[in-house]
Amino acid sequence: KKKSTINHGSRGMSLENEINQSNQYYLSRGIAVVHKKPTPIQIVNVDYPKRSAAIIKEAYFKKASTTDYNGIYLGRYIDFDAKETKQLNSFPLNNFHQHQIKHMQQCYDLGGICFTIIKFTKTDEVYVLNFPDLFKYWKRKEENGKKSISKSEIEHNGYKIKYNLNPLIPYLEAVKTIIDHTNI
Amino acid sequence: KKKSTINHGSRGMSLENEINQSNQYYLSRGIAVVHKKPTPIQIVNVDYPKRSAAIIKEAYFKKASTTDYNGIYLGRYIDFDAKETKQLNSFPLNNFHQHQIKHMQQCYDLGGICFTIIKFTKTDEVYVLNFPDLFKYWKRKEENGKKSISKSEIEHNGYKIKYNLNPLIPYLEAVKTIIDHTNI
Ligand SMILES: [Mg+2]
Ligand SMILES: [Mg+2]
Repeated sequence: KKKSTINHGSRGMSLENEINQSNQYYLSRGIAVVHKKPTPIQIVNVDYPKRSAAIIKEAYFKKASTTDYNGIYLGRYIDFDAKETKQLNSFPLNNFHQHQIKHMQQCYDLGGICFTIIKFTKTDEVYVLNFPDLFKYWKRKEENGKKSISKSEIEHNGYKIKYNLNPLIPYLEAVKTIIDHTNI
Repeated sequence: KKKSTINHGSRGMSLENEINQSNQYYLSRGIAVVHKKPTPIQIVNVDYPKRSAAIIKEAYFKKASTTDYNGIYLGRYIDFDAKETKQLNSFPLNNFHQHQIKHMQQCYDLGGICFTIIKFTKTDEVYVLNFPDLFKYWKRKEENGKKSISKSEIEHNGYKIKYNLNPLIPYLEAVKTIIDHTNI
């Protein structure tokens, strides 16, 4: 099978890797500073051998209490999570934990620019969805409505991001539009 | 020995714990959202036992590529590190890695409010030092000057933080002063 070209997306690369690579580009150009937070780990047991590095012998993954990414762009605090789905026609809201939504709400209330980047992995389509829109659908679910956001709702409310060469995912263009429409 | 009262500091509690506790207060009041980033870990080997949580069997501590804390306050991106020293009269600059300084410089250049919180653990004295001041002393070291910042330089350029009840370390008061003096 021929390796797909970058213009057709980057099949196989995880959304996180794509974002990290894009952030590296933005950082190198002095456009934005955005880093992925390390995975939170509960460390239980550590070995300290003589003359070599400490070895963690027992540890567990903890649930993240915030989002995966934050940083600064256009002088603004930005905060977001990256989510992939294998679904074709909808994005299941159980991809989010309550505390992630709460964290974004807290940042948003203080003037932060919060959003999610959603990738439909079957079709390599990537969208930026602003937090107020995400929250609208989250509330609908909480009020016993649909447990997902339909693809057409995402198309209508979100910003489609076209794969590019550098940065691979130029998501900050959508974020700039969001900032331009934000009155704080 | 009588337990020291909170007004005399909180002998024995790590600066990080004190800051985390203060951030919890700020968060609960909707004043700021600031979280400590998880410790970065290089995971080498993970067990996935049936019917129970994944166990990390081998992992190593990685050097942090950024600072410990970031978040949003007064609509501004803030970014800082917490450093303790047992020294009485100076703060050794080898407490910082080059990449932490570089990260703060990158955020500062984009309009972020960057600083360090320094605790003299022998005397329970805590200071906020704005990044431009820290950088001045960092550059002095790079140019073969002193390898530390003297206590009196910190007293002169920094903001002394008095222990309080809630928040324990009201460091955002100093940050507000820094923001008020920043022209972006
Ligand atoms: Mg994620
Ligand atoms: Mg630190």
